[in-house]
Amino acid sequence: MAKNILIIGGVATGPKTAARLRRLEPDAEITIVERGDLLSYAGCGMPFYIEDIIKEYEELLGGVTIRDASFFKRNKNVTVYDMTEALKINREDKTVTVKDLRNDETRDLPYDKLVLGTGARPFVPRMEGTDLKGVHRLYTPHDAKAIKMAVDAGAKKVAVVGGGLIGIETCGAFVARGCEVTVLEMMPYIVPALLDEEMALLLEKYLEDKGVTIVKGSAVSRIIGDGSGKVAGVETGDGRRVDADIVIIAIGVRPNTELAVDAGLDIGPSRAIAVNEYMQTSDPDIYAGGDCVECTHLVSGEKVFVPLGSTANKHGRIIADNIHGMGTRFPGVLGTAVFKILGHNCGTTGLTERKARELGYDVVTTVAPRYDYSSYIPGAKYTVIKLVADRESCRLLGCQVVGEGDGIKRIDVAATAITFGSNLKAVADLDLGYAPPYSTAIDGIGHAANVLRNKIQGNAHGISAMELKAKLDSDEDFVLLDIRRENECEACTFRDERTVNIPVDELEARVDEIPSGKEIVTICIIGVRAYNAERILRGLGFDDVKFLDGCLVAWPFPEYLTAMF
Amino acid sequence: MAKNILIIGGVATGPKTAARLRRLEPDAEITIVERGDLLSYAGCGMPFYIEDIIKEYEELLGGVTIRDASFFKRNKNVTVYDMTEALKINREDKTVTVKDLRNDETRDLPYDKLVLGTGARPFVPRMEGTDLKGVHRLYTPHDAKAIKMAVDAGAKKVAVVGGGLIGIETCGAFVARGCEVTVLEMMPYIVPALLDEEMALLLEKYLEDKGVTIVKGSAVSRIIGDGSGKVAGVETGDGRRVDADIVIIAIGVRPNTELAVDAGLDIGPSRAIAVNEYMQTSDPDIYAGGDCVECTHLVSGEKVFVPLGSTANKHGRIIADNIHGMGTRFPGVLGTAVFKILGHNCGTTGLTERKARELGYDVVTTVAPRYDYSSYIPGAKYTVIKLVADRESCRLLGCQVVGEGDGIKRIDVAATAITFGSNLKAVADLDLGYAPPYSTAIDGIGHAANVLRNKIQGNAHGISAMELKAKLDSDEDFVLLDIRRENECEACTFRDERTVNIPVDELEARVDEIPSGKEIVTICIIGVRAYNAERILRGLGFDDVKFLDGCLVAWPFPEYLTAMF
Repeated sequence: MAKNILIIGGVATGPKTAARLRRLEPDAEITIVERGDLLSYAGCGMPFYIEDIIKEYEELLGGVTIRDASFFKRNKNVTVYDMTEALKINREDKTVTVKDLRNDETRDLPYDKLVLGTGARPFVPRMEGTDLKGVHRLYTPHDAKAIKMAVDAGAKKVAVVGGGLIGIETCGAFVARGCEVTVLEMMPYIVPALLDEEMALLLEKYLEDKGVTIVKGSAVSRIIGDGSGKVAGVETGDGRRVDADIVIIAIGVRPNTELAVDAGLDIGPSRAIAVNEYMQTSDPDIYAGGDCVECTHLVSGEKVFVPLGSTANKHGRIIADNIHGMGTRFPGVLGTAVFKILGHNCGTTGLTERKARELGYDVVTTVAPRYDYSSYIPGAKYTVIKLVADRESCRLLGCQVVGEGDGIKRIDVAATAITFGSNLKAVADLDLGYAPPYSTAIDGIGHAANVLRNKIQGNAHGISAMELKAKLDSDEDFVLLDIRRENECEACTFRDERTVNIPVDELEARVDEIPSGKEIVTICIIGVRAYNAERILRGLGFDDVKFLDGCLVAWPFPEYLTAMF
Repeated sequence: MAKNILIIGGVATGPKTAARLRRLEPDAEITIVERGDLLSYAGCGMPFYIEDIIKEYEELLGGVTIRDASFFKRNKNVTVYDMTEALKINREDKTVTVKDLRNDETRDLPYDKLVLGTGARPFVPRMEGTDLKGVHRLYTPHDAKAIKMAVDAGAKKVAVVGGGLIGIETCGAFVARGCEVTVLEMMPYIVPALLDEEMALLLEKYLEDKGVTIVKGSAVSRIIGDGSGKVAGVETGDGRRVDADIVIIAIGVRPNTELAVDAGLDIGPSRAIAVNEYMQTSDPDIYAGGDCVECTHLVSGEKVFVPLGSTANKHGRIIADNIHGMGTRFPGVLGTAVFKILGHNCGTTGLTERKARELGYDVVTTVAPRYDYSSYIPGAKYTVIKLVADRESCRLLGCQVVGEGDGIKRIDVAATAITFGSNLKAVADLDLGYAPPYSTAIDGIGHAANVLRNKIQGNAHGISAMELKAKLDSDEDFVLLDIRRENECEACTFRDERTVNIPVDELEARVDEIPSGKEIVTICIIGVRAYNAERILRGLGFDDVKFLDGCLVAWPFPEYLTAMF
């Protein structure tokens, strides 16, 4: 007899499971139950719809071929009950009680195998004002449509509550539409789950340069109304107030686990549904995937909740394989996340420095800017690459990028290398594609790996932007040695009396000008010349020399410079 | 006593060795001998200079900071003798006899360690006419300058002898400058060392669409003059004649091994200088790197000659490490090569199908087109990805891309995966960066890996473009089933009476229209729907069904279609 497969959730994992399973089992009965009226929509496209890069609402729903119930019936022979909520899993009977939201009728649907693709929903904290007109989440295309209409209608001031991935992507969309945007982040820096502080601050510098206001360090405590039921602004716990016509709540998402919890299925340490490597829940006849489950982190081995459309699609395929008896495993994730904001390409994979330290690694890092392709091809841009590695094994643990250059390619290379447990040497040795329009002869990621190898081997000594800032803020005695040409220095250098300019090719001749017995920090534009200067100075007998990691391109505090860099 | 390091060759490996070694050893005596007058120039940039993407000649020489002898002295404390030819290595004395080409004076330079970075030169076959005015190689920036001046002066007709990497890159530059270009390739398809036939033919289709004429299958036998010492055209062995104002000889390059051969150093099976993994020649005091040496291929284990600027830089660094006693190894290469031509991004890494078959692998392949990023973001383009794998182990052996989309990122991911011996499952599982401006939810390379896994597991049956072409050329009885919507078919389908159109969602209802007992080949745009149709038809009891690999997007023979696709 043909299997009866019931799938709860019609956005990513569910439809993918259904499509794959149909190809594997022409005779299976496949049914999808979806609470909403939209299926297989492009959730990740919503910020681009608000930005008006995607013009038509229908594009979010599949474009030419709207993926509705009749599409699934016609093309996949899959029955879809939309506007139908799954109320309860009856594991003993192997049925699910569902309610048709159009007429409130309930009934029990049977299953041989059940698939939970219930997704995640934006977390909305309990506070005053969340139900005011003009307060939005970004959950379904309906939300995106309402937000876009508000901007079209002239809303100007936007407060984005939460500086995480979705908050920042949405911020970019509003700025591009000409809005005045304030991002409110409770933590000391934005996207704290994805980037380390100095990388996040670099992104903040770019955003502020584009007119974004960033309010950090205190949670939003209430949303303020105008007295007529419309939103007027938000207030933080430490008393700051931001006016707003639109408020986006983007504090994070929570997995939809209620059905699983009620059915007594195991919930994992990350509070998402626990699954084994075959994507089975604690009931072997019930699979789960996508934004409602947790995954194994491939570096830390920890269970993590990293909801992403790419992972949800992988899960769907694997669930179908396993319902078909193929025994396909899902190894886990690296927490890879990439996002584009106002021309900047940002991303992360593996462990951040902060996370690696928490886990007890003996961490070494570098921040190395590099042109994304040969500088003599017009349009080449910097990407700042941070690598995180383990000192003893030299294993690459994580990579972050921020910048206008194409850093995302380097994230994908790093993700691949980390998956296979690569050390820094192997990254430097990679035979990556080189041609002037695509890369420099030594690609940015190989360059960064070499810088870090130099540090580990004791051939290079770096100081981070955060460390230099602390020095500059103190009255410590040291020399900040700008080793660029004089005209470069005149255009922009550090606004600090401890700054000295001696071009690198004059260091030997002018060695007497360098105060002896003091710590020296060398600086240039991206760090290559500053590192070279470090080597020259050590050759000349100076012992306490370091170069600034990433130098001016990766310097996140413009107020310390004599001009905008 | 400080070491005395002598380096022959001042373009890539040589200067890199010098720079790295200076940082490691402040006291070493470092000398570079260079035959030409230009150092550290951007050889890979020359096509872009001809194309006028790079405007200024000086950009090829380092831009703001021209990397001449005084630069090296000032910045690196490295002595450079340019216009100085190394005549002979005297291994017993540990000296090199050099001649100053400005005054023909010779002298012996001593060394403790010698580095050969002698590079490679374009191969110019012995044939009539190679010394005519207007016949060029593309070796140094001087050649690039002469070619650019000829185009600036109005040369229109260009014959590029050799359809390899440099020939094709140069072809693109001339087309962009408005020239009429003919590429002459001896083999049955262009870039045969890098791409398999169907991928090369796809590129040829694009080039022909841009007005390039491609003459294949016969070597150029002579270059014809106009009687006054100027070139007038070329003639092939089979009697075809192509008129030309400019002839570029780009048949390939040969390693400059004469010094090494004379000194009795080992030459490898690829006819380049043999080195061990520390980049030492058969004389442990003589290192060699860059375009004059051979490397180990990381998949085949064979010695290969793959001259590339990226590898040359890696070699320089490793040679310096080893002169410094660090014992750094160079593992080898994948033959990765990427090139941009007229908006198309092409690349290869690992083994081609042809090479893998030669080596005796049980080869499985797929050709899978995919948008480079989400189709609802304007500007998304197709990239056609070919994967080559070993059936038994499912190990990924090679990857090729051709198309307007960003395939190069996928080449880098494939190169990284192949380096670590990845199988197809691991490629499909990779946690690559996903956001709509960068990728589809299932990235192209993961998609291609899944298609190939389906084939290996027997869930998908493909037929290649070459195989279908043979069928179409025969009077074989089969059904070419276009399963797209009617309007899609009307716009363009196969010009063949065996073609039938039944949309995929009508297959079940119209099953009687499909002739039984015949082989069926399903087609759509990229293969996803055609594969789905294969599964449906097999579910309906048809046994002999295949889908066309890569379908219309990867179809290289436009003349078989009812319209341009």
